Amino acid sequence: MDINQRALEAHKEWNGKLSINSKSPIKTREDLSIAYTPGVAEPCRVIAKEPDKAYEYTMKANTVAVVSDGSAVLGLGNIGPLAAMPVMEGKCALFKEFGGVNAVPICLDTQDPQEIIKAVKYLAPSFGGINLEDISAPRCFEIEEALKKELNIPVFHDDQHGTAIVVLAGVINALRLTGKKKEECRVVVNGAGAAGIAITKLLMDYGFVDIILCDSTGVVYEGREKLNWIKKEIASVTNRDRIQGTLADAMKESDIFIGVSVPNVVSEDMIKSMRPDPIVFAMSNPDPEIYPDVAKKAGARVVGTGRSDFPNQVNNVVAFPGIFKGALEGRAGQITQEMKLAAAKAIASLITDEELSEDKVLPDIFDERLVGVVSKAVIDHIN
Amino acid sequence: MDINQRALEAHKEWNGKLSINSKSPIKTREDLSIAYTPGVAEPCRVIAKEPDKAYEYTMKANTVAVVSDGSAVLGLGNIGPLAAMPVMEGKCALFKEFGGVNAVPICLDTQDPQEIIKAVKYLAPSFGGINLEDISAPRCFEIEEALKKELNIPVFHDDQHGTAIVVLAGVINALRLTGKKKEECRVVVNGAGAAGIAITKLLMDYGFVDIILCDSTGVVYEGREKLNWIKKEIASVTNRDRIQGTLADAMKESDIFIGVSVPNVVSEDMIKSMRPDPIVFAMSNPDPEIYPDVAKKAGARVVGTGRSDFPNQVNNVVAFPGIFKGALEGRAGQITQEMKLAAAKAIASLITDEELSEDKVLPDIFDERLVGVVSKAVIDHIN
Repeated sequence: MDINQRALEAHKEWNGKLSINSKSPIKTREDLSIAYTPGVAEPCRVIAKEPDKAYEYTMKANTVAVVSDGSAVLGLGNIGPLAAMPVMEGKCALFKEFGGVNAVPICLDTQDPQEIIKAVKYLAPSFGGINLEDISAPRCFEIEEALKKELNIPVFHDDQHGTAIVVLAGVINALRLTGKKKEECRVVVNGAGAAGIAITKLLMDYGFVDIILCDSTGVVYEGREKLNWIKKEIASVTNRDRIQGTLADAMKESDIFIGVSVPNVVSEDMIKSMRPDPIVFAMSNPDPEIYPDVAKKAGARVVGTGRSDFPNQVNNVVAFPGIFKGALEGRAGQITQEMKLAAAKAIASLITDEELSEDKVLPDIFDERLVGVVSKAVIDHIN
Repeated sequence: MDINQRALEAHKEWNGKLSINSKSPIKTREDLSIAYTPGVAEPCRVIAKEPDKAYEYTMKANTVAVVSDGSAVLGLGNIGPLAAMPVMEGKCALFKEFGGVNAVPICLDTQDPQEIIKAVKYLAPSFGGINLEDISAPRCFEIEEALKKELNIPVFHDDQHGTAIVVLAGVINALRLTGKKKEECRVVVNGAGAAGIAITKLLMDYGFVDIILCDSTGVVYEGREKLNWIKKEIASVTNRDRIQGTLADAMKESDIFIGVSVPNVVSEDMIKSMRPDPIVFAMSNPDPEIYPDVAKKAGARVVGTGRSDFPNQVNNVVAFPGIFKGALEGRAGQITQEMKLAAAKAIASLITDEELSEDKVLPDIFDERLVGVVSKAVIDHIN
């Protein structure tokens, strides 16, 4: 039976992947009088006077909303909120299994950014954090920025920042392996959506200075036509040599290729045109921008993909459970670039010098140390 | 240690009364590939084509949102959404413990009816039903009506209809006991908020014809001053004798008193002024409109309250878990008056002729047959 058929049958059997349970069974009048009326009135009264106590007496302390509008789900595109539910439930399952964090899938029946912002703002009292998921670019930037300003709980668009953190962790270890220096590397990021923009920003904050972003039209440069506001913004700080042309032009003499785009857009020749010891993260799913065996044959030293059946899988689950666990435990008001950088370094540090190799620049997703080191990195960087 | 202190300590220990768990632990890559990518894409694709399949592959099938704006919480008044959380979590715990239904507390940071309507509409894709809770009257009527029109999932304001169903069940058995006939009874309902209005409507739909509604100003009659739109509406179909005056005036020569108002507004003399075998439901909490011993001394035949330490407790938990269990299992588009009437009759029918007595017109809240008979009543009345 193929994976699609097995997934369908499993989903049918689960009939919803999450179960919501009472921590205290209610079997007696006594149970009821404590968990519900009349006893419940007392924590209500206390919170009404002292709002912070919500973190002591309610699930706000350890619960996030996984919010999507279904506009950019996996590789499926804009399938809408209802069809996005299996993914959001799965994400919530990962939150609990990997991070011990309660998560509720909230699929919103609007794709208007202003309405999404309002809806999330309205439901925020019940949650300790907001994980935005599978919202298309450039809307996702506007929504996240507005919510970060409006809310006093952490807001984190995982497609942007989760991906950026794990990519940076992989890049850090690829530098360790190759001896390349971040200040000297030319990085090409292909794909100027949620992930591409966030990766570019995080790499710059880490210390990379020479980054060229490409989209489906080719190299992004200042003054180019067909740039939306976020690309304009990023064009003003990247590609300082003002290179124009195609992805192939950008990749010439580059050190690192990061693909968050579409399958098969990178050729052997393009890898061959890179500087020695090319580092390649080809994360288009399920088919990467170039397959690892092809990239290796063309001279790539390190190759990562989004897939679990190749070495160096870039998988957000390495980061987001620990990110939110730390943010909730530390009562962070937001998740800052410093926290993301620290998380990436923490993830990278789990690979010892002995383990480090072309096929091992990222820890296994089931590495049980991950959630601890990532959450600690976040907590250590709360002001 | 008093109940308030015990409730605080228990809430602190729980740190949130609900736990959200994955139905399938994710321990291997294989688990991950089925519950999440790449397998999860297939149920998404199927739902995108056939939206109804969400009821097969997602938790929409068996999950409700418990939505409040914190404007009328218990007897605490308008304490806001954050302070309402302990109550909503408790409600969700009851949903699971009594009905096997998953429920998510959603406390909204707006008290504007139009914004509440929009917010609930937006988050509806994730849920199979909406339980509105502790929203003040008359806003609650407007919100519920609009949502019933806008959504194709059941919307049920429990403070209205849950209360009405259980009161009607108690009244049905009090009629059995006293031999009074619904067509001949005069009913006085004191309190024209969410519960009072819904009780009045359900009693009328059951077949009562002579109902007088009172509010804090006195008897509600057509043309009176200080009537909001819902009271005007109800004034046009109740109190057909156009009685004016006080609660005491209304209660003279009445058969049934139903209080959903404030403590101690009913005197012995008012009970004495009723027709023989008075039926009294005094549900103000924690102090009833008149205490059972006082009412009994004044001649009341049947007395019910909202409290668990007196006989005949009117508690919504008798109804709402089964109501939603039935609505979800039967895929009801809404919860109709017919379903509510059937639920009330089903609840009443659990008391056998042998059991029926002045102190036993309602089943025990822990009666395990309740959820089954109530959900069946709902399912049997889906068109």
